[in-house]
Amino acid sequence: MDFVAKKLITIVAESALEKRLLDGLHDSGIKGYTVSTVHGAGPRGQRVGDLQGGNIKIECVVSEGYVDTVFAMLSKDFFPHYACVAWVSDVGVFRDEHFA
Amino acid sequence: MDFVAKKLITIVAESALEKRLLDGLHDSGIKGYTVSTVHGAGPRGQRVGDLQGGNIKIECVVSEGYVDTVFAMLSKDFFPHYACVAWVSDVGVFRDEHFA
Amino acid sequence: MDFVAKKLITIVAESALEKRLLDGLHDSGIKGYTVSTVHGAGPRGQRVGDLQGGNIKIECVVSEGYVDTVFAMLSKDFFPHYACVAWVSDVGVFRDEHFA
Repeated sequence: MDFVAKKLITIVAESALEKRLLDGLHDSGIKGYTVSTVHGAGPRGQRVGDLQGGNIKIECVVSEGYVDTVFAMLSKDFFPHYACVAWVSDVGVFRDEHFA
Repeated sequence: MDFVAKKLITIVAESALEKRLLDGLHDSGIKGYTVSTVHGAGPRGQRVGDLQGGNIKIECVVSEGYVDTVFAMLSKDFFPHYACVAWVSDVGVFRDEHFA
Repeated sequence: MDFVAKKLITIVAESALEKRLLDGLHDSGIKGYTVSTVHGAGPRGQRVGDLQGGNIKIECVVSEGYVDTVFAMLSKDFFPHYACVAWVSDVGVFRDEHFA
């Protein structure tokens, strides 16, 4: 079976940032994404998002060329200002045409 | 510590497809899975699942031999007909016996 | 763009175990994590967590040195006693300082 190499970007932040993050992804050329409601704690053990309505986890599968664009956006507009973490991993997709 | 290489298959689709997808996984020999409720947008920016009760994300950790079986099932019964995307990645598990 | 290699540990278990698992992670030196509510079935097809309030999925991004510590804790305190599965995968993070 024929798989195409892609990157999965995962972003975790306060729910209040959802629209702004999705706008940032959209402006980076990302049209498809999945959002989950989560809760959690930050790296110093504090509860994150409990008072503001929880956290969200955004996942998007993209071509490798989008990774730098997305992380440049995150490191400019989100990482310095908000409790926001993100990571990237390798995935394979069967149908190339459904992903950015 | 001793880890065994497995594959993580992630499927995102409308909630209405959950039972049919789980039946398809079961028929492919997959007995263990995890389902999350998510929301999101498709690759052309349209909201997916908003009117039908949201989307689901199904995750299952399987031996490599199951990957082709599952994606053959998805590409025959789901990809051509529904808003359904899927990807596969490498994971390691500690206890081999708990996974297909 | 500069990414640092980390490990993503994913743990799925009954919701009733959340506090005990988070305590175990905390004692292993893990301060940051994300918890999702999920449902699912175990490897023998039984529904897991349906009567006890569902399952949880805990995700944490850690330095490689923590993986053995966490899986030693899981295999001592959880795997033999509870419906609990876990897997590990490779991820990259942009901001090292936010992760254990």
